[in-house]
Amino acid sequence: MSDKGLLIILSGPSGCGKDTVINELMKRDRNVVVSISSTTRAKRENEIDGVNYNFLTKSEFEELISNDKVLEYAEYNGCYYGTPIGPIDKMLSEGKDVILKIEVQGAQKVMKKLGDEVVSIFLLPPSFEELERRLRGRNSDTQEQIDSRLKIACDELKRAPYYDYVVVNDDLSVAVEDILSVFKAEKRKTKRNTKVIREVCKNA
Amino acid sequence: MSDKGLLIILSGPSGCGKDTVINELMKRDRNVVVSISSTTRAKRENEIDGVNYNFLTKSEFEELISNDKVLEYAEYNGCYYGTPIGPIDKMLSEGKDVILKIEVQGAQKVMKKLGDEVVSIFLLPPSFEELERRLRGRNSDTQEQIDSRLKIACDELKRAPYYDYVVVNDDLSVAVEDILSVFKAEKRKTKRNTKVIREVCKNA
Repeated sequence: MSDKGLLIILSGPSGCGKDTVINELMKRDRNVVVSISSTTRAKRENEIDGVNYNFLTKSEFEELISNDKVLEYAEYNGCYYGTPIGPIDKMLSEGKDVILKIEVQGAQKVMKKLGDEVVSIFLLPPSFEELERRLRGRNSDTQEQIDSRLKIACDELKRAPYYDYVVVNDDLSVAVEDILSVFKAEKRKTKRNTKVIREVCKNA
Repeated sequence: MSDKGLLIILSGPSGCGKDTVINELMKRDRNVVVSISSTTRAKRENEIDGVNYNFLTKSEFEELISNDKVLEYAEYNGCYYGTPIGPIDKMLSEGKDVILKIEVQGAQKVMKKLGDEVVSIFLLPPSFEELERRLRGRNSDTQEQIDSRLKIACDELKRAPYYDYVVVNDDLSVAVEDILSVFKAEKRKTKRNTKVIREVCKNA
């Protein structure tokens, strides 16, 4: 068995069901955890530090950046959003499978940085019409917000070919099974089993 | 969904349980079939044409070779043994997942020929001692035959690192689950889903 956990990127347009899928994955497999992003923006009233985000000060975040301790980060409206390496390395070395829920730009930065040390999965809606229907059904967004999300979704979908795997989220349980199979198969990859091979061959 | 089936190489030393694993795979997943090798050697009394081997005449086999219609072949004691392409292509286009049960030399020829069109899995025994115990437990082989099998096993195990995946056959049901996960994950690979991606994005 591989001792170190897997690092997995999960991306997909707003409305494709990332959060539902991740919650279900963690329920089905206790070894799966999701990495919490860090930000320097002010915590909103309904948010919890360490759940929605890890809230950092600007100087804390900038120290991480200057020490090359962030996998990827971006700046929006004068605030940093990103993924510090430290907590992820710790979870991986404990054997946890760590999901990074990041948007396509951040995902591409991580893929470039880590190469085949990271497994990338793109979650697809069954169709663009269904994505639109889901986003309109939320009732929490204005017409402008929905149109903007659809435009972004459109751009994001075009990046699906850069991921290792694509999973269609039509039936939730099928999508979750597909992703769990990816985890299992990735752990059987030869490059993650050199120790096992050596062990079996040692008296041959 | 991918329409075309997967082509899978399954190798592993004599005694590692390939046949048991393949039978269990076919029982668990009706879409899985095993490719039958072809040979020009005489059929033995207990063998059935199309089950143990497809028995061909020497001229039939040589015609396949000269038309480049064999994935791999070898000659032992003046007889040909090999894997004609025709029946495999037919099963793949019907959506079947086709297992090639071949030894390491043949496997390496197929990998070289097909590149990433073929998925390769090496089945490992839990240990070399256990392999030896299983081979001695068969009672059908002479001491010389067992020694010869162990020597070959030794060489074969050294080729495990050239396969895409390694699966340890300690607990049969775990090994079978691992292999079925490899099949499922491979079908989610982006390169096999360009049609799906195009379909979802077409109205985006």
